[in-house]
Amino acid sequence: MPAPLRHYNFSAGPAVLPESVLEEAGRNLMSLGETGVGVMEHSHRGKPFVAIIERAEALIRKIANIPDEYAVLFLQGGASLQFAMLPMNFLPDGGTADYLMTGSWSKKAAKEAKLYGATHTACSSEETNFDRIPKPEETTYSDDPAYVHFTSNNTIFGTQFQTEPTPPGDAFLACDASSDIFSRPLDIRKYGLLYAGAQKNLGPSGVTLVVMRQDLLERKCREVPTMLDYKTYVEGRSLYNTPPTFGIYVLMLVLEWIEAQGGLPAIYARNQLKATRLYEYLDESSLFKPAVAKGNGRSLMNVCFVTGDDATDAAFLEFVDQRGLKTLKGHRSVGGMRASLYNAFPPAGVDKLIASMKEFEASR
Amino acid sequence: MPAPLRHYNFSAGPAVLPESVLEEAGRNLMSLGETGVGVMEHSHRGKPFVAIIERAEALIRKIANIPDEYAVLFLQGGASLQFAMLPMNFLPDGGTADYLMTGSWSKKAAKEAKLYGATHTACSSEETNFDRIPKPEETTYSDDPAYVHFTSNNTIFGTQFQTEPTPPGDAFLACDASSDIFSRPLDIRKYGLLYAGAQKNLGPSGVTLVVMRQDLLERKCREVPTMLDYKTYVEGRSLYNTPPTFGIYVLMLVLEWIEAQGGLPAIYARNQLKATRLYEYLDESSLFKPAVAKGNGRSLMNVCFVTGDDATDAAFLEFVDQRGLKTLKGHRSVGGMRASLYNAFPPAGVDKLIASMKEFEASR
Repeated sequence: MPAPLRHYNFSAGPAVLPESVLEEAGRNLMSLGETGVGVMEHSHRGKPFVAIIERAEALIRKIANIPDEYAVLFLQGGASLQFAMLPMNFLPDGGTADYLMTGSWSKKAAKEAKLYGATHTACSSEETNFDRIPKPEETTYSDDPAYVHFTSNNTIFGTQFQTEPTPPGDAFLACDASSDIFSRPLDIRKYGLLYAGAQKNLGPSGVTLVVMRQDLLERKCREVPTMLDYKTYVEGRSLYNTPPTFGIYVLMLVLEWIEAQGGLPAIYARNQLKATRLYEYLDESSLFKPAVAKGNGRSLMNVCFVTGDDATDAAFLEFVDQRGLKTLKGHRSVGGMRASLYNAFPPAGVDKLIASMKEFEASR
Repeated sequence: MPAPLRHYNFSAGPAVLPESVLEEAGRNLMSLGETGVGVMEHSHRGKPFVAIIERAEALIRKIANIPDEYAVLFLQGGASLQFAMLPMNFLPDGGTADYLMTGSWSKKAAKEAKLYGATHTACSSEETNFDRIPKPEETTYSDDPAYVHFTSNNTIFGTQFQTEPTPPGDAFLACDASSDIFSRPLDIRKYGLLYAGAQKNLGPSGVTLVVMRQDLLERKCREVPTMLDYKTYVEGRSLYNTPPTFGIYVLMLVLEWIEAQGGLPAIYARNQLKATRLYEYLDESSLFKPAVAKGNGRSLMNVCFVTGDDATDAAFLEFVDQRGLKTLKGHRSVGGMRASLYNAFPPAGVDKLIASMKEFEASR
């Protein structure tokens, strides 16, 4: 059977995975190694799966240099469930949490917090349709926030924080890193709690990675259901109930791939190369315009661009689709095009995109 | 490459899947059909995945004869999260929910309800270590419960309800059907809300099927986070946020397999055949004793048995392990052995188990 044709997949998530990961997963569906039982069919309490989840944790600690005072947890429900779990556990009645508003996901996160306490908008770029990351000097915190929350990369609008915000006083920094986790080196000591849905840089959808400073457990401010209590996952090592075993297995394979690429420094260099090449073309093009201006926090993960004319956008999308460049349509909030260039997206796909843009531009 | 050796996998969950399902999943990892994008890599908003989730829902409706007034939902977090979502949405302050206590999972479910209201134990077999399903005449409901909850099959103790409890008054019936969903014909009209983790009869871990009467949404009794509100899944057709796409895909393949087997009547006949063969042997054996007496609600899914001597149990487990019969060790709450015979478990594995038991018995 010939290998199936693979297109370039610019999807914003679930997204492209390394081919070597897919091949390895495929080899273990009927039997994980020599166990005679497929990887999806193993009990989560058995040695083979426990070895997988422990290896996944160890790789995360190694790749991102996560020390023991941080717990590495595997949850379900996506970042959207974290939007609620975070305030449910850590925003006391009468307390305030600060949110940096840089896109739709920040807003959704803040909305869930309002069920439990007050929220303060520390900064916002909503007036200009989230076309930039506000500067540190535009950010004003409340007096004594429980935590400061930000979205490190904004998938829809194509912006990305270049450095972390610095929370005031005793507040901890909470981050939705779903769309740029492990895309660049990470200094976890700046964070209290970082979470990420896996389906962009880490694996398939259905697994949420949470890295949290363990002493935060002492700040839990109300009784919460067992499955919504971070303590359950810390104490049960993410095995209180049946975790998404196959998702964690694929995540482990992706982490092995990241390590084999040279870890986060090498991944970062590759991501810079891919995005820079595309932004440089966009800055020079007379047809395509980048949605985010230089200096406004351009994302290395999601490069958004428009022609300014809907019909031309549609014609371009059709043009590249025929050339095997898939899922380039931008989110309806921005329109135009969005090229998601997550870790596993191959540089050759960027070259092919740029070549196609030039060809399209020349044909007009 | 030769096909890997497959052992007989008696795991209680995650559990054995049909080989044809694993083969089909394997063929679509690199490219879902001719799409040029692997099944795990497709956007949940794209046509190929939307076709998958719609087909999964249609198959569930067809196989289990689910009418339109019921919603078919795909969630995350397992049955354990449902333990909390159910009372959070439907047990009002000052209200009471009735729980039929037939095992550890019933107890865990009731524990979560206590955060929101009162619970009433309608019946319990805890005094005899959950060795039976209490009879309907042993069940006493509270005056006006919000709902009545039961665990249709008790994985750990090997018991299974033969008929549904009948809730009093306006209460609806809620069921954790994780370990016997679609193992026999189902009359959904008896239920208000039925939920099941997928990892026994439906697919891999990480997907929770919820089937609920849509008019129950009107009974929501408090504000809850978006991701813990059933309405979010009904209105968003389980696509409010990124669902576990690969898990839903495998679930769809398992549903296709169930349909190809002849649907629930044929699956039920096969399950009866497998379990009956094993129980008949256990009732006659002088070495092995069934953990659940005849007439006490023996499970077709999990057949528990002991020799009464820990050393003999251990020797037997070693004996069968060498013969490719895996994961037969019982849960520590019961000890001995547990043969989980979910839908996908092949009848030939039961025959091999019985032959090995005879051989072991004769060798003593």
